[in-house]
Amino acid sequence: MIRAAIIGASGYIGGELCRLLLGHPRLELVAPVSRSLARRRVDGAHPNLRGLTDLTFTTSEDAADCDVVFLAAPHRETMGMVAHWADRSVCLIDLSADFRLHDPAVYEHYYGARHTAPELLTKFVTGWPERHRKDLVGADRISVPGCMANAAVLALYPLAAAGLIGDTATVDGRIGSSGSGAGAGPMNLHAERSGAMRVFAPTGHRHEAEVAQATGLTVRMSATGVEAVRGAQVLCRATLETDVGENDLRRVYRDCYGEEPFVRVVAQRRGLHRLPEPKILSGSNFCDVGFALDADRGEVIAVAALDNLMKGAAGNAVQCLNIRQGWPERLGLEFPGLHPL
Amino acid sequence: MIRAAIIGASGYIGGELCRLLLGHPRLELVAPVSRSLARRRVDGAHPNLRGLTDLTFTTSEDAADCDVVFLAAPHRETMGMVAHWADRSVCLIDLSADFRLHDPAVYEHYYGARHTAPELLTKFVTGWPERHRKDLVGADRISVPGCMANAAVLALYPLAAAGLIGDTATVDGRIGSSGSGAGAGPMNLHAERSGAMRVFAPTGHRHEAEVAQATGLTVRMSATGVEAVRGAQVLCRATLETDVGENDLRRVYRDCYGEEPFVRVVAQRRGLHRLPEPKILSGSNFCDVGFALDADRGEVIAVAALDNLMKGAAGNAVQCLNIRQGWPERLGLEFPGLHPL
Amino acid sequence: MIRAAIIGASGYIGGELCRLLLGHPRLELVAPVSRSLARRRVDGAHPNLRGLTDLTFTTSEDAADCDVVFLAAPHRETMGMVAHWADRSVCLIDLSADFRLHDPAVYEHYYGARHTAPELLTKFVTGWPERHRKDLVGADRISVPGCMANAAVLALYPLAAAGLIGDTATVDGRIGSSGSGAGAGPMNLHAERSGAMRVFAPTGHRHEAEVAQATGLTVRMSATGVEAVRGAQVLCRATLETDVGENDLRRVYRDCYGEEPFVRVVAQRRGLHRLPEPKILSGSNFCDVGFALDADRGEVIAVAALDNLMKGAAGNAVQCLNIRQGWPERLGLEFPGLHPL
Amino acid sequence: MIRAAIIGASGYIGGELCRLLLGHPRLELVAPVSRSLARRRVDGAHPNLRGLTDLTFTTSEDAADCDVVFLAAPHRETMGMVAHWADRSVCLIDLSADFRLHDPAVYEHYYGARHTAPELLTKFVTGWPERHRKDLVGADRISVPGCMANAAVLALYPLAAAGLIGDTATVDGRIGSSGSGAGAGPMNLHAERSGAMRVFAPTGHRHEAEVAQATGLTVRMSATGVEAVRGAQVLCRATLETDVGENDLRRVYRDCYGEEPFVRVVAQRRGLHRLPEPKILSGSNFCDVGFALDADRGEVIAVAALDNLMKGAAGNAVQCLNIRQGWPERLGLEFPGLHPL
Repeated sequence: MIRAAIIGASGYIGGELCRLLLGHPRLELVAPVSRSLARRRVDGAHPNLRGLTDLTFTTSEDAADCDVVFLAAPHRETMGMVAHWADRSVCLIDLSADFRLHDPAVYEHYYGARHTAPELLTKFVTGWPERHRKDLVGADRISVPGCMANAAVLALYPLAAAGLIGDTATVDGRIGSSGSGAGAGPMNLHAERSGAMRVFAPTGHRHEAEVAQATGLTVRMSATGVEAVRGAQVLCRATLETDVGENDLRRVYRDCYGEEPFVRVVAQRRGLHRLPEPKILSGSNFCDVGFALDADRGEVIAVAALDNLMKGAAGNAVQCLNIRQGWPERLGLEFPGLHPL
Repeated sequence: MIRAAIIGASGYIGGELCRLLLGHPRLELVAPVSRSLARRRVDGAHPNLRGLTDLTFTTSEDAADCDVVFLAAPHRETMGMVAHWADRSVCLIDLSADFRLHDPAVYEHYYGARHTAPELLTKFVTGWPERHRKDLVGADRISVPGCMANAAVLALYPLAAAGLIGDTATVDGRIGSSGSGAGAGPMNLHAERSGAMRVFAPTGHRHEAEVAQATGLTVRMSATGVEAVRGAQVLCRATLETDVGENDLRRVYRDCYGEEPFVRVVAQRRGLHRLPEPKILSGSNFCDVGFALDADRGEVIAVAALDNLMKGAAGNAVQCLNIRQGWPERLGLEFPGLHPL
Repeated sequence: MIRAAIIGASGYIGGELCRLLLGHPRLELVAPVSRSLARRRVDGAHPNLRGLTDLTFTTSEDAADCDVVFLAAPHRETMGMVAHWADRSVCLIDLSADFRLHDPAVYEHYYGARHTAPELLTKFVTGWPERHRKDLVGADRISVPGCMANAAVLALYPLAAAGLIGDTATVDGRIGSSGSGAGAGPMNLHAERSGAMRVFAPTGHRHEAEVAQATGLTVRMSATGVEAVRGAQVLCRATLETDVGENDLRRVYRDCYGEEPFVRVVAQRRGLHRLPEPKILSGSNFCDVGFALDADRGEVIAVAALDNLMKGAAGNAVQCLNIRQGWPERLGLEFPGLHPL
Repeated sequence: MIRAAIIGASGYIGGELCRLLLGHPRLELVAPVSRSLARRRVDGAHPNLRGLTDLTFTTSEDAADCDVVFLAAPHRETMGMVAHWADRSVCLIDLSADFRLHDPAVYEHYYGARHTAPELLTKFVTGWPERHRKDLVGADRISVPGCMANAAVLALYPLAAAGLIGDTATVDGRIGSSGSGAGAGPMNLHAERSGAMRVFAPTGHRHEAEVAQATGLTVRMSATGVEAVRGAQVLCRATLETDVGENDLRRVYRDCYGEEPFVRVVAQRRGLHRLPEPKILSGSNFCDVGFALDADRGEVIAVAALDNLMKGAAGNAVQCLNIRQGWPERLGLEFPGLHPL
C-alpha cells in the first residue's frame, strides 16, 4: 500500500481525492491535511464519506510521513509549499496552477504574480496521460492541468497534431459552480448562481495559456458560469486547413483515443446525447470528446465535457499516479457516471 | 410623494424594497442605506434596477430625512436602531424579527438573546393586512411577519377562527435560498444547495412562535431548505373537530379571503397546479392558500405558498404602507408573477 | 381599446402574451385561441393569471372579431393560417419563423420545407424596433425575430453598421428550457435537462439565417441548452477591422442604444454582473448588450442576454404593437425583472 | 455468473439496473428488454454506459433465457406479466407496486384497479433486507418497496418496534423528478419542475399503505415534488409514548442499524449535514436515517433520505439478490455518493 497525504483536503478537490483514495485498493489515505478543519472529522466536511472513514483532518506539522502528496492548495500559495513537502515525500502531484506553465513570464501574465520557484517549472511532468503516459511512469513531480484546459486540449490536440486545422482556435468554456471551490463568495451563492449564464471571462481565461502551450495553437478562450455543479464543457472552433470529411475527423479522433481508458469519442448523427455532455459524467473520470463539421464554411466544432473535480482534477491526478506506479490505469476510477442526474 | 429610506438596502429584502419603491407612483426612495456599500451605485448590487435609478447607497449618518423608514436589518441588531430612526421619521416599518413577538420571554427563547427594548414590543402593529387592516391605517410602527410564519398564519387562521380544528397544528415549511439573505455562508453555496433537501430545523423553527401567537394554536414547525430561490411553502396539518366537508372548508376560506387583493384560494380537484406553488409567485405579492381534506382520518391539510421576499417581506411591507396611507392597496404591487419560470 | 386574439394561447409564448395583454391599459384580450384546450379556463394553463381573468380558451372558429391577431403557432403551420386570419383582422403579428426570412430558398434550407406563401414574405415588417421603428408605425404585418437571433442582432448590428468588424461573426447561443415550448419531449424532461449543457446545434442553428439577413455578416451559430428556463444569451466573436479602443466600442453602442427603452448597455470593468446575464431579465422586456475587447488579438466579444419569452418573443411583439399604434413604447412592459431569482 | 434480464430496461429504473448489472462481478446482463427501443443500443438511452456495453435492447419474445428477471414495468401492467416470466426464470424481482401490498382490497383502494393475480400476493417476499434478510435467502419472488415507502419504513420501524411511539405517524415525502420515470408528461417538463414545490399528493399518497403494512402504524402520507432528480426524503412525525431522551433514540437506531451495510444513522447536533440529505446519496445504495427530539411536546421527528433509483429501487433490488444468492451484500453497490453534486 502506498501512503498518501492530501494538502487542502477540506476543499472540493480535496474531498474528491479523499473519496478516491478511500476507495482505491492500493492507496492508503494517511494524512488529510486542512489548516482550517484540523482535528475535525473528514466525514463532517465530506458527508458522502460517512461510514467509510473515521479519519480526522490534520495540520501540516502533524501529517504522517507518506509516499505521495497531493497538493490541492490555492494557486500562488502552492509554489511556496513545494520545498516543505518535497522533504517529506518522494512524489508530489500538484493540482494547483502553479506548475502548469513552463514560462514564468506567461505565469505572471495570467496569474498576476511573479513565480517564486521558476527553477522548478521544468521539473513537473504535465498530468496529461493521453500524451505523456511514458513520461509519467516513475515521475516524481506531476502537475495536473486545469479542468477546462484539459477538456480543450483533449478536443483540439488530435486536430492540431494531424495538421487539419489552422494555427488558431477559439474556446468557449462553460463551467459549473464547484469549479470555484468550497470558499464562499458572492458569485457562488445559490441565489446568484441559480439559472445563471455568467460570462466571467469574456477574453483571456487563464486556462487559455495551458491550451496554447499544449497544442501549439493561438487560443482565445472565454468562460461562462452556468447552472451545474461539477460539469465543464468546451466548444472549440477552428478553421479546417484541408478538405476533410466527417469520416476523416472521426478517424483522427478514434486513432488518438481508441485505446484510451478515459476518453470516449461521442459524435453521433442524432439523438439527445449526440455530443459530449458533462452531467452524465459526474463522479466519473471520463472526458467525452466529439465534433461537428461545418463543411460549407470549412470549420470544425470540437466539443469536450468532463467532471471538473474528476478528469478535471482529482480523478486525473489518480490516473496519473496509477500510471506512475505501473498499476492498471482504471484502478479506483471505475465509476461510470449516472443517468439521469 | 412620500419620502422613504431603506436600512439594509443592499440585502435581498432591501433590494426588493428598492425595486418596489422605484416603481411606486406615490413613494420616492431618497435614502438607500448600506454600511458596506455606501457611495456605490444601487444598481451595482441590484442589477435588475439598471436604467431605473442612478442612486448610490448612503450611510445612516448621511441619509436624507424621510417620512417612512423600512428597517431591513438583521435580527437582534434592529432593536438597537429603533430610537435612532424614530427621531428621523414618523413611520417605521420593521422587516426583522425583533418586534414580531409580544412576549420578551418568547423572544429570548427563540432568538437566544434578551430583548433590549421590551417596552416597544406592544407599540408595533403586526403587518398582517388580512387581519389587522383597520389597525394599520395610520399606524406609525409596523412589524412585518416572517415569510413562513405569514404563509402558515394565512393557511391556518381561517380554520382556527371558525373553530373547525383542534388546538394544535404541525407546519412543515420549505424554503428557497433567498430566505437566508445575501450574506455568503456555506449553506448558501450553490454547490451545497443545488438539489438539496436540507432539514435545517427539524423542530422549533423560529417562525413557530409567530404562528402560535397569531392563531392561538400550539404549533410544531419544521423547516427544510430546498432548491428554489424565492419560494416558500407550508404544509400544515390539523385535526378536524367537527364533521366538515370540502365545501365547508372552501366556504370558510372564501369567506375569509374572497375580497382580499393578495390572497387567492387555490384548491382544485385536479390539474398540475391544483394546490399553491411558490414558483409562479416570484415577484408577486400573492399568497396562495389551499387545502385538502382527509375525511377518513378527520384531518385537514392546508397549504400556502408565497415569494419569501415579497408577500414574505418587502411586498407585504409596501401593502401595509399602502393601507396606512389610505392608498389603493395594490399600488405598486400589480405584478402577477410568471409562468413558466 | 384595441381587441386582440392570440393563436396558440396555451403555449408558453401564448401564455406570456396573455399576461401582457391582460395587464396592458389599451389592449383587450378577446380571443385566446387554443385547439387543444378550447373551453378550458386560461388560468388553468397559466396559473399566474389566477384572479386576473375568467376567460376560457376558444377555437379558431368561435374566436371573436378583433383588431389584431398574435400568431403564436408552430413554424411551418403558420404560413397556412395567414389567409384565414387576414380575413378576420387588419393587423397580424407573427411570432413563428415563417415570415422572418425574405428569401424562400433560405427558408427551405433552414426549415426543411418549401414555403407555401412566398409572395407574402416581403409584406412583413421585421419586428426589430431599434432598427425598423418607422416602418412599424401603422404596419399591418409584423414578423417577430427569433429569441437568439434578436439578441445576436442587437449585439452585432452596431459593430457591423459602424464598419468596425470584418464580414464574419461566430455566435454561441445558450438557451433555457422554455425556448423549446410547452410541448413535452425527452429533451425537455426535468431529469434530462437539469444541470445540462447540451450542444443541440453545433453548427448552423436556424437563427443564423436571421442574423445574417439583418447584419449582412456571414454568421456561424451554435446553440447549447443549459439549465435555466427563460434565459437566452449569445456570445459573439468578430475580428476588429481597425484599431479601436474600449471607449470607441462603448460609444458605438451608446450612440445606437442610448435612447432605446429596452436595450441597456452593460459592459463594466468589474463586478459580478459586469456583462449581460439573462436571469435578472426574466419577465422583463430588456435586452442587455455588452462587450469585451481583446486588443492583443484584435477581437471583440459581444454579449447579449434577454428573456426568450419576452424580448425574445411576446414582449417584443407588444413593443412592436405599441409602436404601430403610436402608443408610448413602454406601455404594459414596465416590469424590470427580479434579483435574485 | 448469474444471467439476468431486465424488463423495462429503457426506463430510469431499468437504466440504473443496467448500470449495476454491468458493474457487478457475478451478474451478467443478457436481456435488456424494451418494447419501444428494441434493437436500439442500450447506451443510446443510457449514455453513461458508453464504452461499457455494446448490448441492444431486445423484445420479450427474443429475450435470452436467464436465471433472474428484474421486472421494472409499470404498475398494473406487471401483474399480468408474472406468469410469462415465471416460465422463463426461476427468480423474479419485481420493482413495480403490484406485489407490495398483501391485501388485494388495499391494492384496489390505492391503485384504482382490481388485482388480477391476488393468489400471488403472498408469494412475494418484501425486499426489505434490514427486516427480512433471512426470508430473502433463496427467495424466488421478491417485491421491492416504493422509494418513499422504503425511506419511511426505515425511519419509523425502529421506533414502532421498540414501542416508543403511538400508533399513528405522519409522513411528509419530498421527491425528485426521476421518481416519475422517463415518460414525458407536463409535470416532468423542466420549465414546470424547475424550482417547484408541488404538493401532488396532499393526503393518501400510495406509499402510505406500504408503510402502514410494514410498521403496523396508521400512517398519513403526503408527497411534494421538489427540484432535484434522484433524491427522496421523508420527514416523519410521531408522538412519543414514554419519556425518552435523545440518547435512547440514538441507541434504538444504532441497535437496529449498527451492522447494516446500507443504513447510516445521521443525527448530529450541528453542522450543515446534521440530518439525512438525499443529494449526497445520488448513485449510492445508502439510506440515511436520523431524528430530532421535541422533548417539550413529546414528539419525535424522524428523517430519512435515499436515491429514489437506488435504495429506492434498483440498488435495493440488487442488494436483495445479493442476499438471496448468499453473496457479500455490498457486491456491485460500493459507490458511496458524491459531494458536492
